[in-house]
Amino acid sequence: MIDLENGVFLGQVEDLAARRRWPDLRDMLTLLEPADIAAVLAELPADRLPVLYRLLPKELAAEVFVEMEPEEQEVLIKSFSDTELREVLEELYVDDTVDLIEEMPASVVKRILRHTDPETRRSVNEILRYPEDSAGSIMTTEFVDLKRDMTVSDAIKRIRRTGSDKETINICYVTDPSRHLLGLVSIRTLVLADEEDIIEDIMETNIISAATMDDKEDVAQDLSRYDFLAMPVVDKESRLVGIVTIDDAIDVMEEEATEDFELMAAITPTDKPYLRTGVWETVKSRLPWLMLLMLSATFTGIVISSFEDSLAVCSVLIGFIPMLMGTGGNCGNQSSVAVIRGLSLNEIGFSDLLSVVWKESRVALVCGALLSCANFVKLLAVDRWLMQNAEVTTLVALVICLTLMCTVFCAKVVGCLLPLLAEKIGLDPAVMAAPFISTIVDVLSLLIYFQFAMALLGL
Amino acid sequence: MIDLENGVFLGQVEDLAARRRWPDLRDMLTLLEPADIAAVLAELPADRLPVLYRLLPKELAAEVFVEMEPEEQEVLIKSFSDTELREVLEELYVDDTVDLIEEMPASVVKRILRHTDPETRRSVNEILRYPEDSAGSIMTTEFVDLKRDMTVSDAIKRIRRTGSDKETINICYVTDPSRHLLGLVSIRTLVLADEEDIIEDIMETNIISAATMDDKEDVAQDLSRYDFLAMPVVDKESRLVGIVTIDDAIDVMEEEATEDFELMAAITPTDKPYLRTGVWETVKSRLPWLMLLMLSATFTGIVISSFEDSLAVCSVLIGFIPMLMGTGGNCGNQSSVAVIRGLSLNEIGFSDLLSVVWKESRVALVCGALLSCANFVKLLAVDRWLMQNAEVTTLVALVICLTLMCTVFCAKVVGCLLPLLAEKIGLDPAVMAAPFISTIVDVLSLLIYFQFAMALLGL
Repeated sequence: MIDLENGVFLGQVEDLAARRRWPDLRDMLTLLEPADIAAVLAELPADRLPVLYRLLPKELAAEVFVEMEPEEQEVLIKSFSDTELREVLEELYVDDTVDLIEEMPASVVKRILRHTDPETRRSVNEILRYPEDSAGSIMTTEFVDLKRDMTVSDAIKRIRRTGSDKETINICYVTDPSRHLLGLVSIRTLVLADEEDIIEDIMETNIISAATMDDKEDVAQDLSRYDFLAMPVVDKESRLVGIVTIDDAIDVMEEEATEDFELMAAITPTDKPYLRTGVWETVKSRLPWLMLLMLSATFTGIVISSFEDSLAVCSVLIGFIPMLMGTGGNCGNQSSVAVIRGLSLNEIGFSDLLSVVWKESRVALVCGALLSCANFVKLLAVDRWLMQNAEVTTLVALVICLTLMCTVFCAKVVGCLLPLLAEKIGLDPAVMAAPFISTIVDVLSLLIYFQFAMALLGL
Repeated sequence: MIDLENGVFLGQVEDLAARRRWPDLRDMLTLLEPADIAAVLAELPADRLPVLYRLLPKELAAEVFVEMEPEEQEVLIKSFSDTELREVLEELYVDDTVDLIEEMPASVVKRILRHTDPETRRSVNEILRYPEDSAGSIMTTEFVDLKRDMTVSDAIKRIRRTGSDKETINICYVTDPSRHLLGLVSIRTLVLADEEDIIEDIMETNIISAATMDDKEDVAQDLSRYDFLAMPVVDKESRLVGIVTIDDAIDVMEEEATEDFELMAAITPTDKPYLRTGVWETVKSRLPWLMLLMLSATFTGIVISSFEDSLAVCSVLIGFIPMLMGTGGNCGNQSSVAVIRGLSLNEIGFSDLLSVVWKESRVALVCGALLSCANFVKLLAVDRWLMQNAEVTTLVALVICLTLMCTVFCAKVVGCLLPLLAEKIGLDPAVMAAPFISTIVDVLSLLIYFQFAMALLGL
């Protein structure tokens, strides 16, 4: 990977472009991987883009095009002649064409479809019909299909004839005349087999496949779980309609992890890289949550206000509110994140509810007890004895430590329950992380605090 | 994927095992993927494990073995005769043997090494020498190497002769006699090429490779960035020593994401699945952080205590503390998580510090202004007018809203700065998430609050 950060390489590119040294520039760029060329072009002024792009050999150009961000793709398409557009589109795989169409404005989409050949257009339209989160939406319809009665040598001939247009030839699919999936055979098996072997005898018939409407996240998880390079996708009638390749599955996994991170930080997910998101877009993805959480913090305020008189009597209690709320929030956050991650890796499910709660309860008891003891010692040794704060009586310390114990317990149980319940009712469990958990735990910890204070201190 | 959750399948397995219907059981299990068989066996009582495992055909058995958790692997190895152990070890790829050795207790490791053939033992020892986070530690030494002057037909012959022991034949590596990497050629290229083509003419010479000591996370990111199926790993003298395959890269990516999630929730990462981690282990990974954060919350308490007298005079201010601290924490969390994720996807680096801070500052100004306005209206309309709380004067509302504005700004800047600084000094940026940010922002927001209160309310 070239180091774009220090800017030396970019400087050289700009310099060569300014001096119109096109052949040198071409030699320099073609040494890079497509993803890196796309990154270099993105850093240059937009008006240079079409010129530099045209330097690239046709096939490489298409690969670079796929790696670009939608903004640059749009600039390029607008600069293309019809012939150029057709040439690029011919080189794209169907799933990349679909991605492109999904990102472009309507006028550009119309132009793209006009210059796509009819067969590809049919495939594109088919894929576009599937919902955004489905396996169908990320599959490609270009795979190698073989027949069961072919010999290995027939199969290799067929691959040689049709393979160059396919996204992968690493796994080939065996179908019957009505396109039902009968088995699969890897290129490895084909190469290692005898030329006269019959496909039917060497194919793997024990197939894991996805349905077009399966959640794309589950399909990506399965590809990872089974170490597959591609997963066949079948329709309701078990006919093979496409495949999901590992590179697309990895993209899904990264996107989903990013989405979880964002939801857990109370950000509405966007699929743009950080520095590419404008200020207003960023505000739009963050402000509604802040507003909501700010308003819900009002409840915490109401609880405090309703105990204002008691607090005025025993004002030492106020100083410990942040510690209690903070520790509660941290405990709840730990449990919720552990459960959210377990859910998204399919390590746990709603049916594990009881064992999760049982585990978290025991963890909470141990953590709560140890935190309370540590705090009790600290209150008496530091606050009372060292800092001579006479208001911190043993009874006050007891109130604080009992509250801590109960808060930790409630926080851990709430923290593990909410993501599981969210999953059950079809919400994304990642929403039930720090921000929401803290807001709930804040109120709980205050209520517990004041109950103990009233009971033990007689406020 | 079979549905283990409802327990029907497991019930059938247990039933067949109890009735000693071994052939039926074997037929039932061999229909599954290795990962699923491992999951089924893990759910059964440990004493059944060796019996059921021995039902599986040799090759499948080894694949299942690789998918198991260390606990079950240990049980099995202890039940193996020397011959059985040798048979399993023969079927394992070198990198799987390394993984196994890393997880087993010393006595088991000794026995494993005694029964590994000398060549594998040498490779294992070589891989074990690399640090835990390095590319070297996750590579396999079993790859297909070709010579530049071979014809395609020679190459395919070589693959057919040696390929069945290699982890992948999808990418083959061309080396010179001193093992320097000259190029690579995919099986796709080989299959689509003419038999008489010379490897040198069709190989890709523009190679991206990793060094043995590169961070395994970066190598995984590169595999994903360039859509590679394998990445060659070279030593300091540019000699090819191994390859990292995509399935191992995916595991690294998942582990690293899980690690980030855990660090961000103040949990020390463990690499065990949630339900497999015992209560004490969980406590050990969580308690130190809770303790640390609890103690650091003491500072917040000290700030409040030092303003106790002022708060007693104007006790209405107390009720808004949670809202101010909460909103600050949420704002900081949003920025830090956005930056942490950007860093781990290599979308941003330390050199982007200025543009990140500039962006977050503008986002903070907009968010802060809108939150303050909303809050001002709410304070006067709801608290003052609707709930007739005479203590909420316009001046009090002003103090709260100015504090909110400044807190949001500080929180967003601190939130984006700390992960970048952590990255710079070599810490994991994920540590700088919600828990730490909140603790810092809590103190900041209180200090701001009391400054405004003293200035405007004259406390």
